[in-house]
Amino acid sequence: MKRVSAIDELEAKGQAAKAASRKLARLSTEVKNRALSNVADGLVSRTGEILEANQRDRAAAEASGMGPAMLDRLLLSPERLAAMAQDVRAVVALPDPVGEVFDMRTMPNGLQVGKKRVPLGVIGAIYESRPNVTVDISTLCLKSGNAVVLRSGKEAINSSLALAKVVQEAAYGAGVPGGAVQIIESTDRAVVNRMLKMSSVIDLLVPRGGADLIRFVSENAAVPVVAGGVGVCHTYVDKSADLHKAVAIAYNAKVQRPTVCNALDTLLVHADIAESYLKLISREWGKAGVEMHCDEAALRILKDVPSLKVLPSVEADWGKEFLALVAAVKVVNSLDEALEHIQRYTSGHSEAIVTEDYTAALRFLDEIDAACVYVNASTRFTDGGQFGLGAEVGISTQKLHARGPMGLRELTSYKWIIFGSGQVRP
Amino acid sequence: MKRVSAIDELEAKGQAAKAASRKLARLSTEVKNRALSNVADGLVSRTGEILEANQRDRAAAEASGMGPAMLDRLLLSPERLAAMAQDVRAVVALPDPVGEVFDMRTMPNGLQVGKKRVPLGVIGAIYESRPNVTVDISTLCLKSGNAVVLRSGKEAINSSLALAKVVQEAAYGAGVPGGAVQIIESTDRAVVNRMLKMSSVIDLLVPRGGADLIRFVSENAAVPVVAGGVGVCHTYVDKSADLHKAVAIAYNAKVQRPTVCNALDTLLVHADIAESYLKLISREWGKAGVEMHCDEAALRILKDVPSLKVLPSVEADWGKEFLALVAAVKVVNSLDEALEHIQRYTSGHSEAIVTEDYTAALRFLDEIDAACVYVNASTRFTDGGQFGLGAEVGISTQKLHARGPMGLRELTSYKWIIFGSGQVRP
Repeated sequence: MKRVSAIDELEAKGQAAKAASRKLARLSTEVKNRALSNVADGLVSRTGEILEANQRDRAAAEASGMGPAMLDRLLLSPERLAAMAQDVRAVVALPDPVGEVFDMRTMPNGLQVGKKRVPLGVIGAIYESRPNVTVDISTLCLKSGNAVVLRSGKEAINSSLALAKVVQEAAYGAGVPGGAVQIIESTDRAVVNRMLKMSSVIDLLVPRGGADLIRFVSENAAVPVVAGGVGVCHTYVDKSADLHKAVAIAYNAKVQRPTVCNALDTLLVHADIAESYLKLISREWGKAGVEMHCDEAALRILKDVPSLKVLPSVEADWGKEFLALVAAVKVVNSLDEALEHIQRYTSGHSEAIVTEDYTAALRFLDEIDAACVYVNASTRFTDGGQFGLGAEVGISTQKLHARGPMGLRELTSYKWIIFGSGQVRP
Repeated sequence: MKRVSAIDELEAKGQAAKAASRKLARLSTEVKNRALSNVADGLVSRTGEILEANQRDRAAAEASGMGPAMLDRLLLSPERLAAMAQDVRAVVALPDPVGEVFDMRTMPNGLQVGKKRVPLGVIGAIYESRPNVTVDISTLCLKSGNAVVLRSGKEAINSSLALAKVVQEAAYGAGVPGGAVQIIESTDRAVVNRMLKMSSVIDLLVPRGGADLIRFVSENAAVPVVAGGVGVCHTYVDKSADLHKAVAIAYNAKVQRPTVCNALDTLLVHADIAESYLKLISREWGKAGVEMHCDEAALRILKDVPSLKVLPSVEADWGKEFLALVAAVKVVNSLDEALEHIQRYTSGHSEAIVTEDYTAALRFLDEIDAACVYVNASTRFTDGGQFGLGAEVGISTQKLHARGPMGLRELTSYKWIIFGSGQVRP
């Protein structure tokens, strides 16, 4: 009976979200912004009840033997809630994408034909143990005029329910149509499987979590999905590179935050400068504790440097997302070899070249097929905020609809609007 | 063994298309246009061999008892080939969408961040018995820098293979990389099922055919699909309508080409003008042989008009795509009732209001959720050519990626390009 009621809950909440989405699509920016300000206030003023719910999740997680990294993801604190409130206030400041009219033109027969930006409708979010996703996604959906159906992981369910309650009460109090923010209380896996097939209710699914979740959702959904979050990122140091820039860039890309998708995984170095460059970067990486998995040529250069964590690479190192202070290192004999290696192993996320050669820079930008292609900068910049989008829903590694960082505009569609004066088709 | 070899054929051709797509993405507009001109020439100069293949398809179809409407779809003639050649020349004249750089901005740290338009990669086309789709889709893919894998229906396979051969030889002769245009010779259904799952090779699936094919592809594909082609189109005649415009518009929308997706299916009429308007439109529709399925109120008005094909409506008439000289007719008491009816039964294709009331016009544009929303014009205008896109791949009724008529630009994606000078993330 539990399974049946979980599906019933999902269906009822999905229908309620869909009904709300029609009104939400035409809500004024003023009301949406007031709702988000209320959410930010609520996250601070209701810290007590949110942390109490979070404490229950953490107690259950500890009892089940969850490791410290996962426990940290689950943790909410007054500081983290204040930071979440700050992020919500930043969304208030962003322009409202809905209602923009663009590409308007007058046809020879006098028809005025253009496009008007509209919300997608209902966004389904499937996530795991980060309770902050509840607030991130629901506030971005509200600002872009979309209703949302949230499905939190079991580990974070009490925290997510408490946060969703704050969002709902704040939003509805400000005049957002009831039903716009839905969270599924059941953590039955059957809910996920059903969500993947709810094409008549959900317009877009956003999976947020590990590679396994994202793959499962992408492969099994009948509803459109924007998938991303897996980044196998290469930095290629060309023979003409400014070695100081190249050291700063590779250091930043690997060390500044190694656990995220836009961190460096593989360093490719042109043979002509491999000896001098690898000695420079390995010294800096060495201080930060980076472990280097080197091909034969790189190994020959670095084998005599004491105190470095240098290991011979294995085939599985190429195309691997390390999410840790580990980098694969390979010496290549040409730009072409670098391009070929990257095209073979890229996950289509972020790729960089360091070079002072104009033609090499343009070829790299032109030939690499990835969401974000860099010349002389760290791949760590792949981020909605850094690219000027304000907030970000995620980073898409697919080509349809949105690629790279997805902001508010990427949560919208358009409709064609046609102003006639009696025209008929000859 | 046949099944295995069909899948082998698909896999090999898919890989070849993918390999070609990398080169095709960077092909000059000049080469692409020369290829398309050659295709247009080839369609005319090789009419004989194409018609010979078409004759084999038609003989088989006749032997299998295919009806005249289907047979007509299958038919190629010198005139039809000349028209196809003309369409291909029109694509030559369209601007090349690939390579456009847009949304470029300089961030406070000096990074220059923008987007560059790129092809999607490999388009998979699954179609039925219209051999011209072979040429339409492959030329639009070529111009937008995409490789294509074509899967023609069994009924048209000889014609499609002959047309694809013309396209391939013309394109490769002009310098298009070999492998860019692939057609599957096997008509085994297993090919379709496998194509739906080839995410690693195919970037977008375009199903072209009847509602059953489109539904099957949409529901079962793991590859992204742009689906459309089903249009349940309403025209609402408001109480403030100019009745002469309203007659011309509803007549055009129903009669000019009744077998297509943007033709009128349901006519909604405001009660205040129902009597005068229905008498006017029924006279015109009557001359054209339109059968009217009327609700009670409309029936009362029209029951005494002699020689009209008037029947009482049944529930199944609402939301039905007739694709014939049949229209459902309903009298409504308000704009709100019209909006509710349309929202309930729309397929999200094309919807129109006829009104002289400013507020009613804006409310209709605002509140109707469809790909194309019209004021005072015939829904028959929903077409890439009529909207100024030049050619059209199809009409999308989904909200993700592209909505409404899809032209060349809708066969592209973008990548973020970032010009740095040594920036690292703080």
